[in-house]
Amino acid sequence: MPENAFQTIGLIVRSRSAGHQAEIALISQALQQRGEMLVHYLDETACLEGFPHLPAQTLGENADLVVSIGGDGTLLAATRLMVDYKVPLVGINLGRLGFLADVTMQDLDCHLEGIFNGDYTVEKRFLLQGDVALHNAEGVSQVAFNDIILHSHKTVSMIEFEVFTNGQLINRQRADGLIVTTPTGSTAYSLSGGGPIMHPTLDVIALVPICPHTLSHRPIVLPANQTIEIRLAAHHSALVSFDGNTRAIAGELDRVSVQRYPSEITLLHPSSYDYFNILRSKLKWSNHP
Amino acid sequence: MPENAFQTIGLIVRSRSAGHQAEIALISQALQQRGEMLVHYLDETACLEGFPHLPAQTLGENADLVVSIGGDGTLLAATRLMVDYKVPLVGINLGRLGFLADVTMQDLDCHLEGIFNGDYTVEKRFLLQGDVALHNAEGVSQVAFNDIILHSHKTVSMIEFEVFTNGQLINRQRADGLIVTTPTGSTAYSLSGGGPIMHPTLDVIALVPICPHTLSHRPIVLPANQTIEIRLAAHHSALVSFDGNTRAIAGELDRVSVQRYPSEITLLHPSSYDYFNILRSKLKWSNHP
Amino acid sequence: MPENAFQTIGLIVRSRSAGHQAEIALISQALQQRGEMLVHYLDETACLEGFPHLPAQTLGENADLVVSIGGDGTLLAATRLMVDYKVPLVGINLGRLGFLADVTMQDLDCHLEGIFNGDYTVEKRFLLQGDVALHNAEGVSQVAFNDIILHSHKTVSMIEFEVFTNGQLINRQRADGLIVTTPTGSTAYSLSGGGPIMHPTLDVIALVPICPHTLSHRPIVLPANQTIEIRLAAHHSALVSFDGNTRAIAGELDRVSVQRYPSEITLLHPSSYDYFNILRSKLKWSNHP
Amino acid sequence: MPENAFQTIGLIVRSRSAGHQAEIALISQALQQRGEMLVHYLDETACLEGFPHLPAQTLGENADLVVSIGGDGTLLAATRLMVDYKVPLVGINLGRLGFLADVTMQDLDCHLEGIFNGDYTVEKRFLLQGDVALHNAEGVSQVAFNDIILHSHKTVSMIEFEVFTNGQLINRQRADGLIVTTPTGSTAYSLSGGGPIMHPTLDVIALVPICPHTLSHRPIVLPANQTIEIRLAAHHSALVSFDGNTRAIAGELDRVSVQRYPSEITLLHPSSYDYFNILRSKLKWSNHP
Repeated sequence: MPENAFQTIGLIVRSRSAGHQAEIALISQALQQRGEMLVHYLDETACLEGFPHLPAQTLGENADLVVSIGGDGTLLAATRLMVDYKVPLVGINLGRLGFLADVTMQDLDCHLEGIFNGDYTVEKRFLLQGDVALHNAEGVSQVAFNDIILHSHKTVSMIEFEVFTNGQLINRQRADGLIVTTPTGSTAYSLSGGGPIMHPTLDVIALVPICPHTLSHRPIVLPANQTIEIRLAAHHSALVSFDGNTRAIAGELDRVSVQRYPSEITLLHPSSYDYFNILRSKLKWSNHP
Repeated sequence: MPENAFQTIGLIVRSRSAGHQAEIALISQALQQRGEMLVHYLDETACLEGFPHLPAQTLGENADLVVSIGGDGTLLAATRLMVDYKVPLVGINLGRLGFLADVTMQDLDCHLEGIFNGDYTVEKRFLLQGDVALHNAEGVSQVAFNDIILHSHKTVSMIEFEVFTNGQLINRQRADGLIVTTPTGSTAYSLSGGGPIMHPTLDVIALVPICPHTLSHRPIVLPANQTIEIRLAAHHSALVSFDGNTRAIAGELDRVSVQRYPSEITLLHPSSYDYFNILRSKLKWSNHP
Repeated sequence: MPENAFQTIGLIVRSRSAGHQAEIALISQALQQRGEMLVHYLDETACLEGFPHLPAQTLGENADLVVSIGGDGTLLAATRLMVDYKVPLVGINLGRLGFLADVTMQDLDCHLEGIFNGDYTVEKRFLLQGDVALHNAEGVSQVAFNDIILHSHKTVSMIEFEVFTNGQLINRQRADGLIVTTPTGSTAYSLSGGGPIMHPTLDVIALVPICPHTLSHRPIVLPANQTIEIRLAAHHSALVSFDGNTRAIAGELDRVSVQRYPSEITLLHPSSYDYFNILRSKLKWSNHP
Repeated sequence: MPENAFQTIGLIVRSRSAGHQAEIALISQALQQRGEMLVHYLDETACLEGFPHLPAQTLGENADLVVSIGGDGTLLAATRLMVDYKVPLVGINLGRLGFLADVTMQDLDCHLEGIFNGDYTVEKRFLLQGDVALHNAEGVSQVAFNDIILHSHKTVSMIEFEVFTNGQLINRQRADGLIVTTPTGSTAYSLSGGGPIMHPTLDVIALVPICPHTLSHRPIVLPANQTIEIRLAAHHSALVSFDGNTRAIAGELDRVSVQRYPSEITLLHPSSYDYFNILRSKLKWSNHP
């Protein structure tokens, strides 16, 4: 009988997955048979009887494996919470197959069996750290797994800004916004903005302009070890979002800088994991002639 | 001596063109030599001594020609104000050449001379009317010369909606927004969103999705006599903008409909007017091999 | 009992539809029950026993209805052959649903029943005429239903050319080629080149550059009554294709002009015909939230 | 007086630069003052009196520096010839500023002075190796600095193929072709095809589909150490081009594989070299508000 490496299991779950109580209970039972369970709820309403809400730190310091239940959004949140700990993550998807959360309910038993028996694929991915230095308030510093986005404060209006990498001017743009994306985020919002798909093992980021005024502005792929800085032009201000959550408003005298976060995250996938297969399925690339 | 057909001249000017007082005075003098001048200020601060602010209606009913001073934005505003009157418009551009306002300061005398001597090009263009029927408040009805846009209420988040034309479903989309553009607007925001350039004489509109989630959504060109209706999905709401000015927030039970406005507008251009020459200049299409 | 308006039926079939002999026989029987059948084979090998190959002209002059069997390509060919006659066309699709040939085998009986009982949707569409005037050889004049394309003679090399409309320069471009497309062709090759979808009732054409060197070149929609002329730059030559079939090589001193063909074609669709439903299906626009 | 590290100078020049004889003579004189000169002509017609044509190998084995005179195309050719030697390259541009050949005639003296005094920027770039294994003929193996492209054999027709990386299926596509590009090539043809700009220091390649039939196919960025293989579908054949020069026709049973070439090339730039400044200039990104 193989030794179970994952004796303490952290569970991260979103309470608004309320319509999925049956599935969540099922997953919870399957996990309890395999080890001690520590639960962190992403929203205030707890939803698993007998499991009190624990701080993310408790899971990070004690769990051997963190399981995220929900979808890609839940796994994004779990990743941001766990990035400073060494614990690996796996994502169970309650809905359709996700780009990240790739254990589906129909394959639950088989996939969990494999993972707890050591039959999985390990993948390292990096996150971004964004620092918004505000001249008239305390700054904001946050991590993001998909993307950090500057977007026009008022919708339907352009922002004007300059983009620098390692202090060197790339260009001055007028656009609805700018996406700074990781390879992980390259299949999310960035793709809708015309960005390229970037293989998850790459140590690169992409700058993707949103509806740029000048038609020759194109996505630019840069080494992830460069520091991006965005400076807004006079009288312009922009919302700064991290994985889709707005956290700051930056104006002319403020500075938004983005760089690779020092720690990496470890994702575990079922051993059948095939990145391109997920792409083919999600992007409806047909297989037949 | 040729008869002057434009004896009463309406002037529409934006007061924040303050940095351009000298040019505005120059234009004003040139126009006063040619006829009686009626002035409408788009903002509260008047800026031409001796000329009180008159309602747009006074210009519309009395002027033989309306001159807009500013740029494309000022001419857009002038057009919306004058669409119900028969008076033709001409746009003087205080800055760089515009797509619409194509009389520039360096050619001012020559162009005005031509226009007042009957040496000009006449162009008819149409506007859009947008009706936002709100289930819990009075509706909003507005015209737009460039475009009517539905955009995510919160930035960096998608809206989900269905688009109909003459009651027939086109598609259901998730996107940052949707642009409904006239040929006039096709070289404005729509172009940044990937829309086609549409010749100004065409009786067509285009639906241009902004950052669509499904990558096979593309701009669609439709007859201008069709009525477009956009219905937001449950729990989604969107800002509705007319030529870039937000006028309403529409939600699930509201209806946004867009159709060709009954009246047309008449633009006068210097006789040297060449639509494609303006495109080549504005879009930096090089001429040399 | 309703009178059958279609007593003489022209059949246009491609002999390489050989794998579909059973279906073709089935269709043939269904049609023979309804009228006299005249057959035109698009390739030399005849494939319907008892029906000799007749010239397209015979069908055009005698048939009350022409049925094309194959797919969109077969209907394109049938349309080019029938454009000078008044006879309406209907397309039966042996494979997957087409954009044009929308009677499928599973709905064959029901759809034929409807069409012969007068229960159908009538649609007028226009074709393009391309004239290639060669300075050192007899010119070529052809019609096309989808598109007329200039493409680099040698693959992987740009051509340089100027585009005019009604004698007025639009622009000078370096690109792999240029697509001149009808609304019908807007969902074919043009869409892969980034062109907009154009509603089939529109009287417009689009110019769609293929891989343009200058990134601000975009698709342009023009009135269909304008005459497009393309002039190749010195030392450049291009293949000229009509609906994908190359018919001429044009060089520096030659002139390629494209205009709306005078006659229109009449397509009949099953009464359930819904243009946008076909788009949704072919472009995999999802319907669910 | 600083020691001159570049005592033997290889000159690579294209004879069809005939209209530039005066400039070439000027450059040649400037170089002869600095060292012994070995010349390789890319075409048969020699154009520098007193300098016989030498094999590329002689330059590679003996020169301390190779100077390419012409434009980006000449430097591409020089790079392919020199990739197996350790000698660094510098490109002098006889026309407009190039992406690669960035010493211009107006700055010639100043830039050469700097480079020969050791005041330059060193840049490493990689090339691609393409292997076309033909089942019925000897295979073709070539290097490319910009890109290796599969393109429809016949213009205006799609090819169907499968793309693999390290033996793993990426997708099956129908398209006009596929570009496999280095970061160097990302600002060349790939950009016209919608590919992203990739920083020259990156160890990545991109796969860029040309006019893909399925609209959700997008450029994909991959690690440069992966081996790409393209397999044509039955009855499909494609031209295989290396930096724009066609070298093979591959069909159904043939295999086209692309991988990073083992050796790197060293480019020397004037010390004022700024990659993004060249981008801003070439792509007409405006600097003003």
